[in-house]
Amino acid sequence: MDSSKLANFKYKSFNHIETGIMNNNLKALFEPTSVALIGASSKEFSIGNVIIKNLLHYQFKGPIYPINQKEDEIRGLKAYKTIFDVPGPIDLVHIVIPPPFVPQEVENCGIKGVKAIIINTAGFKEMGAEGQALEDDFLARAKKYNIRIFGPNCQGIINSDPAFQAYCNFTFTYFKPGAISIVAQSGGVGAVITQALHDMHIGIRLYASNGNASDISITEIIKYYGEDEQTKVIVLYLESLSNTKEFMEVATKVTAKKPILAISAGRTEKGAAASKSHTGGLAGGITMELIFQKVGILSFSNLEEICHAAMAFSSQPIPKGKNVGMITNTGGPAIIATDELVSCGMTIPPLSDQAKADLKLTMLDAASINNPLDVVATAGATHFKSAIEVMMNEPQIDSIYLTFVTPPFVDCVSVAKEIAAISKLQRKPIVCNYITDKENWKETSKILNEGGIPCFDYPETAAKALSALVNYHDIQSIEQGSIKVFVDIDFENAKTVFDKAKAQNKEVLTAADVYQILEAYRIPIAKWSIANTIEEAVLEAEKIGFPLVIKADSEKIIHKSDVGGVAINIKNVDEVRSVVTNMQQKLQQPDLKFFIQEFLTESRELIIGVKEEEGLGHLIMFGMGGVMVEVYKDVVFKIAPLTDIDAQAMLDNIKSAALLGDFRGKKGIDKGKVIEILQRISALVHDFPQIKELDLNPIFANEKRVCAVDARIIM
Amino acid sequence: MDSSKLANFKYKSFNHIETGIMNNNLKALFEPTSVALIGASSKEFSIGNVIIKNLLHYQFKGPIYPINQKEDEIRGLKAYKTIFDVPGPIDLVHIVIPPPFVPQEVENCGIKGVKAIIINTAGFKEMGAEGQALEDDFLARAKKYNIRIFGPNCQGIINSDPAFQAYCNFTFTYFKPGAISIVAQSGGVGAVITQALHDMHIGIRLYASNGNASDISITEIIKYYGEDEQTKVIVLYLESLSNTKEFMEVATKVTAKKPILAISAGRTEKGAAASKSHTGGLAGGITMELIFQKVGILSFSNLEEICHAAMAFSSQPIPKGKNVGMITNTGGPAIIATDELVSCGMTIPPLSDQAKADLKLTMLDAASINNPLDVVATAGATHFKSAIEVMMNEPQIDSIYLTFVTPPFVDCVSVAKEIAAISKLQRKPIVCNYITDKENWKETSKILNEGGIPCFDYPETAAKALSALVNYHDIQSIEQGSIKVFVDIDFENAKTVFDKAKAQNKEVLTAADVYQILEAYRIPIAKWSIANTIEEAVLEAEKIGFPLVIKADSEKIIHKSDVGGVAINIKNVDEVRSVVTNMQQKLQQPDLKFFIQEFLTESRELIIGVKEEEGLGHLIMFGMGGVMVEVYKDVVFKIAPLTDIDAQAMLDNIKSAALLGDFRGKKGIDKGKVIEILQRISALVHDFPQIKELDLNPIFANEKRVCAVDARIIM
Repeated sequence: MDSSKLANFKYKSFNHIETGIMNNNLKALFEPTSVALIGASSKEFSIGNVIIKNLLHYQFKGPIYPINQKEDEIRGLKAYKTIFDVPGPIDLVHIVIPPPFVPQEVENCGIKGVKAIIINTAGFKEMGAEGQALEDDFLARAKKYNIRIFGPNCQGIINSDPAFQAYCNFTFTYFKPGAISIVAQSGGVGAVITQALHDMHIGIRLYASNGNASDISITEIIKYYGEDEQTKVIVLYLESLSNTKEFMEVATKVTAKKPILAISAGRTEKGAAASKSHTGGLAGGITMELIFQKVGILSFSNLEEICHAAMAFSSQPIPKGKNVGMITNTGGPAIIATDELVSCGMTIPPLSDQAKADLKLTMLDAASINNPLDVVATAGATHFKSAIEVMMNEPQIDSIYLTFVTPPFVDCVSVAKEIAAISKLQRKPIVCNYITDKENWKETSKILNEGGIPCFDYPETAAKALSALVNYHDIQSIEQGSIKVFVDIDFENAKTVFDKAKAQNKEVLTAADVYQILEAYRIPIAKWSIANTIEEAVLEAEKIGFPLVIKADSEKIIHKSDVGGVAINIKNVDEVRSVVTNMQQKLQQPDLKFFIQEFLTESRELIIGVKEEEGLGHLIMFGMGGVMVEVYKDVVFKIAPLTDIDAQAMLDNIKSAALLGDFRGKKGIDKGKVIEILQRISALVHDFPQIKELDLNPIFANEKRVCAVDARIIM
Repeated sequence: MDSSKLANFKYKSFNHIETGIMNNNLKALFEPTSVALIGASSKEFSIGNVIIKNLLHYQFKGPIYPINQKEDEIRGLKAYKTIFDVPGPIDLVHIVIPPPFVPQEVENCGIKGVKAIIINTAGFKEMGAEGQALEDDFLARAKKYNIRIFGPNCQGIINSDPAFQAYCNFTFTYFKPGAISIVAQSGGVGAVITQALHDMHIGIRLYASNGNASDISITEIIKYYGEDEQTKVIVLYLESLSNTKEFMEVATKVTAKKPILAISAGRTEKGAAASKSHTGGLAGGITMELIFQKVGILSFSNLEEICHAAMAFSSQPIPKGKNVGMITNTGGPAIIATDELVSCGMTIPPLSDQAKADLKLTMLDAASINNPLDVVATAGATHFKSAIEVMMNEPQIDSIYLTFVTPPFVDCVSVAKEIAAISKLQRKPIVCNYITDKENWKETSKILNEGGIPCFDYPETAAKALSALVNYHDIQSIEQGSIKVFVDIDFENAKTVFDKAKAQNKEVLTAADVYQILEAYRIPIAKWSIANTIEEAVLEAEKIGFPLVIKADSEKIIHKSDVGGVAINIKNVDEVRSVVTNMQQKLQQPDLKFFIQEFLTESRELIIGVKEEEGLGHLIMFGMGGVMVEVYKDVVFKIAPLTDIDAQAMLDNIKSAALLGDFRGKKGIDKGKVIEILQRISALVHDFPQIKELDLNPIFANEKRVCAVDARIIM
C-alpha cells in the first residue's frame, strides 16, 4: 500500500459501524416492558431478593416475574417455578443462579422468546478455563436465539425514564430522572459516581455496568447513549479496552453530538511507571489519555471532578469561550475561585464602562464594581438580578461564576428565585459556589436545584466544573488538520528492506537498513563516514563538508570523551589532520578508525520515537533530547497518523517549547522541518505497520537544518 | 555582630512570648458567661437580630442582653436602653451599630467593666483615613480599660463547649462539639470550612474570624487554641501576615503539641506570577509555603483537602509510617485508591505469610488474600473483623485504608459495628471510602460516624486524607539540623565594604566589593583577570592555571559568541596566544581587552540566590542554572538561616537532583562544597541583614571544585 492512500483516511468518516455487529439494538435491555428474575429469593440478604425489592421500590412499570422452584410468593409478587410458567412475554431476564445452571437457563430463555438477559452471577471467565467454557456455552445458545447478553459478573442497568423506571440492578441509589447517562466498567466505581450525583440532587437517565462484557460491550452502550435523545452527557469509567478501534470510531461520532466525560483506571500507577522508564516505556501509561484526546472525549483524573463536571454539563449550556464574569457576596471564596479559574486557563476580563455605569446605579454603595463584582453580603434579590443581567449582556463574557453565601440577614429565597429565573433562559452557563447549611436553607437550596444551577460546596470545585465546560468548547473547536501526502516517498525501496529483513528473521534492523528506509522516506540523516587513515579522513571530511565531528572508533575504547576520543566543531582540513594525528598518538589502538559526521553548530538535541500499541496502531513521541527527556520527561505523545495540526501541536506542547524558538542569543530551529519529519515518520509507520519501535535519537536541529544523528528500528 | 552568634539561634526555643503582649488571655472572648449586643434589632433581616437568634438557637448558657434604645423586648428577651441598664456584669459585648457611634460605646463598655468586645460593624480602616481614625479612637479607649477587641468588620466567634454554647456570630452553621478549632482570616472561607465539616457530621470546638484584627490577632488565637486541651487539631486560613516572626514563634510551639493545618490565599495567582518572573521574583508566591514548612504547619492547596484532613486528624491517631494496609469489598474504587495512595508517596506492603494463612481460614473462598485485601461484596461482619484485626497486628502496616460499599444483600449494620469497635481502640488510623446512600443507610452511617471513622465519598479524597496524617508524622520526624559556625569568616573585612558602600549611598555593589565580601566569607569564586596584550594574557593565564576561558571585552561587542569572541577550554600557552591573536585580528576594536577566567571542564551550571522578604528575613534559592532555571523553574527556596539539613535538602529537592550525581559518564559534583556555600551565604545574609538581593549566577561545579563565576549584591 502506498502512503498516498493515507489521504483517504479521516477519523470522522467511518461508515461500517451502522451495519456491523451493532445492528442488534439494546432496546430490550434498557427499555424492558417486563422483567423476570431466575433465582428470585425470599432471603432478605440475597441478590435474588434485592433485585425484586429494587424493581418494586423504583416502581417498575411492567410486570415482575420472580422465578423460584419452591416459593409461591416473593415480596408479595406471585413466583413461578420456571420461566415457561410465566403467562406473558418477557423482554428482560436476570439470572442470579450459580454458573453451572446458567447455560440451560439461557437456552430456556431462548425458547421462551426473551430478548435480553442480565447475568449477575459471577464465576465465569474471570475464574479460569472452566468458567470460560460455561461462558462460551451460554453465549452460543444466546446467539442461536438472537438474545443479547449483559454481563456476566455484573450489576445490571437502571433506566429512570418515567415510562420504565427499570431498576434492574442490585445497588442502592434510587436516583431521579435526569440528563446524565453513566457506563462503568467497575460496578463499585459506578456506585461512587451514581451516588455522588444523587447526593448533589442531580438526576440520572441511564446507568449500566456490564462486568465481563461477554456480549454487549461498553462501546455499544456508548453508541446507545449517543442515540438516546434524553441523554445530554455521558459519563464513562474505563479500566481497559478490548476493541480499541471500534471504540474510537463510535466515540468520535458520539462526541460530535454530545459530551463524553471519561476517567480511566490506573492513571497514577501508570504515571509512576512512566516516570521510571525511558522513551518507549513512557507510552504505556498515557495511551488511554491519548485515545480520549484523539476522539474528543473530555478526560478527568479523579472521580469527584468528573461528577462535578457532569452536574454542570447536565443543566448548563456550553460557553463560547474562556472569559468568566464573577459575582460574589463574600470576599475570600471569590479570591480562591479567581486563583483556581486562572490556573485552569480561564480569564476574568474587565467590565465595559457601560456595564460599570449601569451597576453604579443598581448596586449598594459598598459594592465593588469590577470583575469579580462584589455585591457585598447585604445584597438582596434586586442586586443579584441586576448583577447577573449585566454579565449576561456583556459580549466579552462567556460564562458566570457565582459565589453565594446565604446571609441570615438577607431574604435568600428571593435571591435564589432571581438566579434560577435567569439561569432558565440558558443564555450563558452559570456555576455557583453555594455556601449554606442546606438543612436550614432547604427552600433556597430547592429553588437553586430546580433552576438547574450547579451548586458546589467549595470554590475550587465550582471553578473546575466551569473549566470543564470551557474545555469541552475548546475540544469541539479544535481543527483536525489534514494528513499530508508525500509524493517523493520511495515506498518500494523501503519495502524491499523490510521484506529482506523479514526473510532473514531480523527484529532489529541494521544501521544500513535503517538509513536506507529513512532515505526512502526523505527523513534527513546527518552525513557520516568512516576513515582508517589521515588521508581517508581528509577525503571523507571534504565530501561531507564542514563543520564536523570526529570520534575515535575502536572496540577497546568505551568512554571516548574521557580519553580525548571526541572532537567537535572541526572547521577545516588542517584541523582534521591535527585531530586525527592527535588521536592516533594518544590512543594507540591497532583497530583505530575515525567516525566522521556532519556537525550542526548552535543546535538543539531533539528526539522522535514510535511505539506500537496492541490494537491501536502506533504512538509517536516528540521531545527535547538528552537531559530534558531523561530528567524532566519533557515529551509529548500522539496516536498515528499525525495531521499537520497534530505535528505542530507536539512542538507547541512540550514544556520547553520556548527552547525551540530564539533563545539566549541562539536563533530558533527550523520548526517546519521538524514538523515535516514527524509527518514523514507517521507515513512510514502507517505504510509499515510491522514496525514495533522506531527512534530518531538524537536529532540535531538549528535554524537551517534538522537531521537525525542516530536511528533505530525494531520490527 | 559576629556570625558565631548564629550558634545561639534555634527556632524551637523562644521564651519571650509568655511575657509579651499576649499575657491578656482570650478567656472572656471564647468563654463568655454573659453577652450583650449593642445594636440589637427586632428586624428579622438584620445582624442585630440574627446574633440574638443564634445565641438563643445554640442555647447560650449565660444571660443575653439586647441593647436597644426603643424596644423593650427582642426575640422574647428583655431589651435594655443602654449597657448601664444591664443588671449584672458583662463578659462580652457585640457592637453592630454604625462606625461613628462605636468609640463612645467602647468607652461605655469600659466604664461598665466589660472584658471583651466583638465589633461586627464594618467601615473602619478598610475604608480609608476616616475609618482608621475611628479605629484608633476605639482602640485607645479599649486599652485604657484593658478591654480586648475582636474585629472590627468581622463575623465573631463560636464556642461549642456544652458549658458555654456561645454562638457569638451572624453565620448559620450550628455545629456539634468536636476536636477541631478553626481560625479564618476571611469569614466566607471560614463558612466554607465550617459548613463542610458540619455536612460530614464532624464536630468543631472553636471558631473565630477576626476581620480587621485591630487588636486580637490570628497569632493570639492560634496560641489560645494551642493551649486549649480540647482542641486536637487547628485549621487556619490566612490571607496575609502582619507580624511574621511572632506568628512563626507561636506556630512553632503549637505544632510541637498538635497539628496546624493551613491554607493561604492567592496560591495559584502567586503561582502564576512566579512562573512569569525570574530568579528573585520566584520567591514572592511561595513565601507563605516556606513559612508553613519552617514552623511545621501542614500546608494544603485547596479547601476540600484541608477539611477532609481535619476530619481524619480529629478522630484518628497519627500513623508511624507510610505503609498502608488496604481492605475492600469492591474492586474498582480500591484500584483508584491504590493509585492515589502510591502517587501521594504511600506504600502498600505485602502481607506476612502468617497473616495470609490466618486470612485463608477466615475469608470467603472468592476473597483475594493480598494487600489490597478484597474480602468481596458478600463479606459480612466476621470477615471484616478478621481482615481489620490482621492488618492491626501486622507490624509492617502503619494505617488502614478501607473501601466499604454497602451491598443490600449484606447485614451492613453488623459490619459497621465491627469496624467502629476496632477503630475505638485507636491502635492505627483508619480512613474509609464509604459508598452508600446515607439517607437509606442511616443506621450504618451513624455507627461509623460515632465510631470516629472518617468516611469519604471518593477513593481519591479518602487516600489524600490518609496521606495528610502520614505527612504530619513525617513533618514531626524531620530533624532540624544545626547552623554551622564558620570560624574562618572575616566579618570585619566584609563589614568595611558594606559600611563604605553605605557611606557612598551605593545600592548595587561593584564587582570588586562583591568579590571582597565573598572572599571574606570564603565563598569560592572562579579566578579571573583582565589582559590588554598577548603577553599580559599569557602571564595572567599562567597565574590562574589551565584550562581557561577567554572572552573578548569591548564596549562595542555585545554578543561575544556571535563574533567569535569566546573561547573555552584553553589548555596551554600556545592556545592562549593563538586565541588572542585570532580575536585581535577578527574584532579590530581599539578598546579590546581579554577577560580570562578559570574553566571547569565537565561542570554543571548552578545558581544560588537570596532575596529579602519584608518582616521575614531572607529567602535563599538553589537550583540548576541556565536553561533549567529559565525553562523548568527547577529551583528550591528556604527561609534563612539554613541548617546543614536545610542545605542538604535543597540539593535533594530540585527535580534534576539526579544531574548532581554521576550522570551520563560525567562524575557527580562535589555536593559537600555546594552545601557549604549555601551555609556560608546563610551566614553572610544573617550577619548583614541590609542585603536585599544576592546572586551567585552561574556557579560552575564538577567533582573537584565548585565556584561562582559571576556574583551580584544589592543593598
